[in-house]
Amino acid sequence: MIKAMAALEAKAPLTPYEFDPGELKSDEVEIDVHYCGICHSDISMIDNEWGESVYPLIAGHEVAGVISKIGSDVTRFKVGQKVGLGWHSSFCNHCGHCDHGDHNLCAEAEGTIVGHHGGFADKVRAAANSVVAIPDGIDLSVAGPLFCGGITVFNPLVQFDVKPTDKVAVIGIGGLGHLALKFLNAWGCEVTAFTSSDAKRDEALSLGAHHTLNSRDRKEIKAAAGTFDLIISTVNVKLDWNLYLQTLKARGRLHFVGATLEPLDISVFSLMMQQCSVSSSPVGSPATIAEMLDFSERHKIAPQVEMFKFSEINNALDHLRNGDVRYRIVLDMKQ
Amino acid sequence: MIKAMAALEAKAPLTPYEFDPGELKSDEVEIDVHYCGICHSDISMIDNEWGESVYPLIAGHEVAGVISKIGSDVTRFKVGQKVGLGWHSSFCNHCGHCDHGDHNLCAEAEGTIVGHHGGFADKVRAAANSVVAIPDGIDLSVAGPLFCGGITVFNPLVQFDVKPTDKVAVIGIGGLGHLALKFLNAWGCEVTAFTSSDAKRDEALSLGAHHTLNSRDRKEIKAAAGTFDLIISTVNVKLDWNLYLQTLKARGRLHFVGATLEPLDISVFSLMMQQCSVSSSPVGSPATIAEMLDFSERHKIAPQVEMFKFSEINNALDHLRNGDVRYRIVLDMKQ
Repeated sequence: MIKAMAALEAKAPLTPYEFDPGELKSDEVEIDVHYCGICHSDISMIDNEWGESVYPLIAGHEVAGVISKIGSDVTRFKVGQKVGLGWHSSFCNHCGHCDHGDHNLCAEAEGTIVGHHGGFADKVRAAANSVVAIPDGIDLSVAGPLFCGGITVFNPLVQFDVKPTDKVAVIGIGGLGHLALKFLNAWGCEVTAFTSSDAKRDEALSLGAHHTLNSRDRKEIKAAAGTFDLIISTVNVKLDWNLYLQTLKARGRLHFVGATLEPLDISVFSLMMQQCSVSSSPVGSPATIAEMLDFSERHKIAPQVEMFKFSEINNALDHLRNGDVRYRIVLDMKQ
Repeated sequence: MIKAMAALEAKAPLTPYEFDPGELKSDEVEIDVHYCGICHSDISMIDNEWGESVYPLIAGHEVAGVISKIGSDVTRFKVGQKVGLGWHSSFCNHCGHCDHGDHNLCAEAEGTIVGHHGGFADKVRAAANSVVAIPDGIDLSVAGPLFCGGITVFNPLVQFDVKPTDKVAVIGIGGLGHLALKFLNAWGCEVTAFTSSDAKRDEALSLGAHHTLNSRDRKEIKAAAGTFDLIISTVNVKLDWNLYLQTLKARGRLHFVGATLEPLDISVFSLMMQQCSVSSSPVGSPATIAEMLDFSERHKIAPQVEMFKFSEINNALDHLRNGDVRYRIVLDMKQ
């Protein structure tokens, strides 16, 4: 039996829930969950914000743990090996995207917490090729958030061929943004943090930003016209995007990893004169996650986390709902 | 004296206008205008739609003619040589964009009809490095529209590294769109034309499209989900862009060369799941224009035009305002 904390209906507090996972499939592994991060999308799924939740729902998709069982066809892992699991728990393995290594774009990819039982549990199962080995130099207790928050901001650097000579801005210094600052600094870029919180300006500098700008000060933003090759927005609120587009250089890109629900209201003229792009992307492929972990180990990059006991999970979720997490929550599953 | 047809105020019919251009600058050439295309942006400038018109205004920025004079420092052209002039008539020549060959992105670039006298005249002057030689195999009488309408749709193929294996759609089969179909067919792509006009479906096929779709039929568009690597929109009306985004493949791009004035209203989720981009671009650099002319000569690509005498210019402008041009108007300046 797997022992989990589940939401029995939308917006309900999590309650203890046990289930029999059945026989392990030949291509699957079972992970003994040591730590699991909490991501805003866990709350979106618990609350059924996206209309795709299935109850009882076991959230948790920033898993760091140890392989406890392997399916009969699995050759890439051994029992006892340190691994992580992120947003995706399996892929179709035969579409064009899977063939090209872009598993995260596979239309048949299964979400770890979308009709599948996630990591708020003592054990979690997933297809072996959705699981990624964690290098020895990465502390298991803070590895979880890299598997969703981390890869979400790391993947655009790979996808859009960001260069160490680029000037990059990050909007929103939270769970995703603080990791973006660390990655970009190590990537060699000139890094600017846009934040609405004066208190976070000094923190942003300590996290890797070279400059900070107040995201609510139109004058300060206008003065940065023509500055950035790339802006990564991690917020989910509506800003004056046409104003931010003015801060891009020619061929610049405004990239959204925060799931802003309101339409972007962007004018063609804001894009045309300087040949700018607007885009978005979802997490990353297992191969890119492995690159991120290697890069993180080499550059000693880890998320800054607040640790909660698994038994305190409802308090942890409330803390995240209330908003002032610095910067990511991790559950210690063994306490 | 240069003899032109000028607008003396916003929205006025053009009237004969003569001016003394003064001495030719050392880096300039003077072109004897043989033919000049009419572009929608000539009307936008005559009508001061963009608030940057200076009167008397001499429009015309699709010039095909012959060099009649060269400045003392000009070495790239000889008197008598066939050349064309498009949207830009000079560049700063010292910014990062000019240094990289991206003159069309130069913030100091001068528009041929923006505070400068354009090609609705017997002669036009421009900086030599904004002028491009026309290969022998290209008929001067139809070369003009390539210099603005043509390069506007050709440039994205270069900028975004479009591959002959790509599937590309064009929205709007008019002055820009009909050239886009010809270029894309010669580029090796699978080409789809979106048009709201049933009458144009067969024409689109004859222009190079392999398939056509009705741009007003939501069912037909939905059935094309996940089909295109690139969509080039040449229209300036508002469509349901989130619906069109569904027709993109993963990593697809919806690119605007039509100056839609209404905000794009795009949802982040429409971009995120398949890592799509939205972008726009202005004309192209002289170097890219030269590549386009070489490509057009090799593939026998020419715009389909309706020819008017220069003396009929006001009729020609009215014809364009009324909308049913097939597909581009050219003025014969020698008649």
